[in-house]
Amino acid sequence: MKRVRLKVAYDGTNYCGWQIQPNEVTIEGVLNETLSELLDEEIEVVGASRTDSGVHADGNYCVFDTETHIPAEKIAYAMNQRLPEDISIVKSEEVDSDWHPRYQNSMKTYQYTIINRDMPDPVRRLYTYFTYAKLDVDKMKEAAKYLEGEHDFEAFCSTGSQVENTVRTIESLKVTQNGDEIAIIAKGNGFLYNMVRIIAGTLLEVGEGKLEPSDMDDIIASKDRGRAGKTAVARGLRLVEIKYDEN
Amino acid sequence: MKRVRLKVAYDGTNYCGWQIQPNEVTIEGVLNETLSELLDEEIEVVGASRTDSGVHADGNYCVFDTETHIPAEKIAYAMNQRLPEDISIVKSEEVDSDWHPRYQNSMKTYQYTIINRDMPDPVRRLYTYFTYAKLDVDKMKEAAKYLEGEHDFEAFCSTGSQVENTVRTIESLKVTQNGDEIAIIAKGNGFLYNMVRIIAGTLLEVGEGKLEPSDMDDIIASKDRGRAGKTAVARGLRLVEIKYDEN
Repeated sequence: MKRVRLKVAYDGTNYCGWQIQPNEVTIEGVLNETLSELLDEEIEVVGASRTDSGVHADGNYCVFDTETHIPAEKIAYAMNQRLPEDISIVKSEEVDSDWHPRYQNSMKTYQYTIINRDMPDPVRRLYTYFTYAKLDVDKMKEAAKYLEGEHDFEAFCSTGSQVENTVRTIESLKVTQNGDEIAIIAKGNGFLYNMVRIIAGTLLEVGEGKLEPSDMDDIIASKDRGRAGKTAVARGLRLVEIKYDEN
Repeated sequence: MKRVRLKVAYDGTNYCGWQIQPNEVTIEGVLNETLSELLDEEIEVVGASRTDSGVHADGNYCVFDTETHIPAEKIAYAMNQRLPEDISIVKSEEVDSDWHPRYQNSMKTYQYTIINRDMPDPVRRLYTYFTYAKLDVDKMKEAAKYLEGEHDFEAFCSTGSQVENTVRTIESLKVTQNGDEIAIIAKGNGFLYNMVRIIAGTLLEVGEGKLEPSDMDDIIASKDRGRAGKTAVARGLRLVEIKYDEN
């Protein structure tokens, strides 16, 4: 018996998110089926981040236990032969039998990408949010600074969430611009449900002049989801990286 | 009556190329239908570049004549309301009544994009060609230099083509690398059928060590399609820009 860790990249466009659900096509579901078939065992992966429907990933992680004699490093290649084009195993490797993708200290990097120009760009549409409203990027940068650090982010958590403790630490929240592409890059060891998309939606409202950077303090203090911006659409969000302490 | 020029961007994934064909969905076909409906006239556009099935564009051009009173600049906005997400009008403007997108001197820029890493990347798959074979980019750059300038490119033209004169001038052919992304950027005022994709396929074989940069002279001189590399897959190709002399 060994425990194998997979680094998984995917285009979330055609999936109902990571988490397995009856009658829905999910990343976890496809991985379980493909691994079970490949290894001829019943496999159930345990994932690091349960990304939402339509969200993409360059490097999400999961683990599973297997009796297979196939070397762990070869599993990535065998899987990529069988997986649909929109899911790819970037790396497979053996880990300690008690290694768990959610019970380790880790730093997650999410990126929310915005296209800001007059007309939409078909070639980037699936992985970005488009707006023709001219955004004030300097104000977005300024607002982002207010959100860095440890805060109670209840105002930035979708109301459906059942989590009790809504205090989180954003290690860094950067806004960058490259031509017509604006990226919001959030790093932290854990985010609330929809938190990055709500932050993106809030910074978009700052960029549009509907909110001021200095409003961020009040919004945090209010703990009121209604005060923050809209939840930005899923397609603009990508889980870029998870860095585990031992990496 | 006025002549209107459209700058058109599209994701070619789900289209049988630019040119209208019976029983196939094409960019030209969708533009004709959408314009005819919007302007309530029978509209037939005349395009600049008849890109192949699966090829993308940031800026192809076409023109049409219309009796409409809608200002030419507004047509882009009205069209984008009606077009599917994978086609976008970047700009619309009035041009002289004798302006023709193929009878003007122009400089076209095509880019062929390659992802070169161990495992495929789902998020870029629709717009790039993936290879895990480690490419020698310096050799690709060296080979590209041989192809610049005026040559008879018969060896780089698909055999189905009926064109008589296969002499063309490549203004520049650059190979750039940015992380795992290798771009082949070709500029010229005209290319033969499949020429950029055959050049990309040939440079890929150089990168893999199957051909040497110095073989390029022989391949050109042979005028033999069989001597050049394979036609690289369509999804990696993008018409980036057409610059008309008066622009």
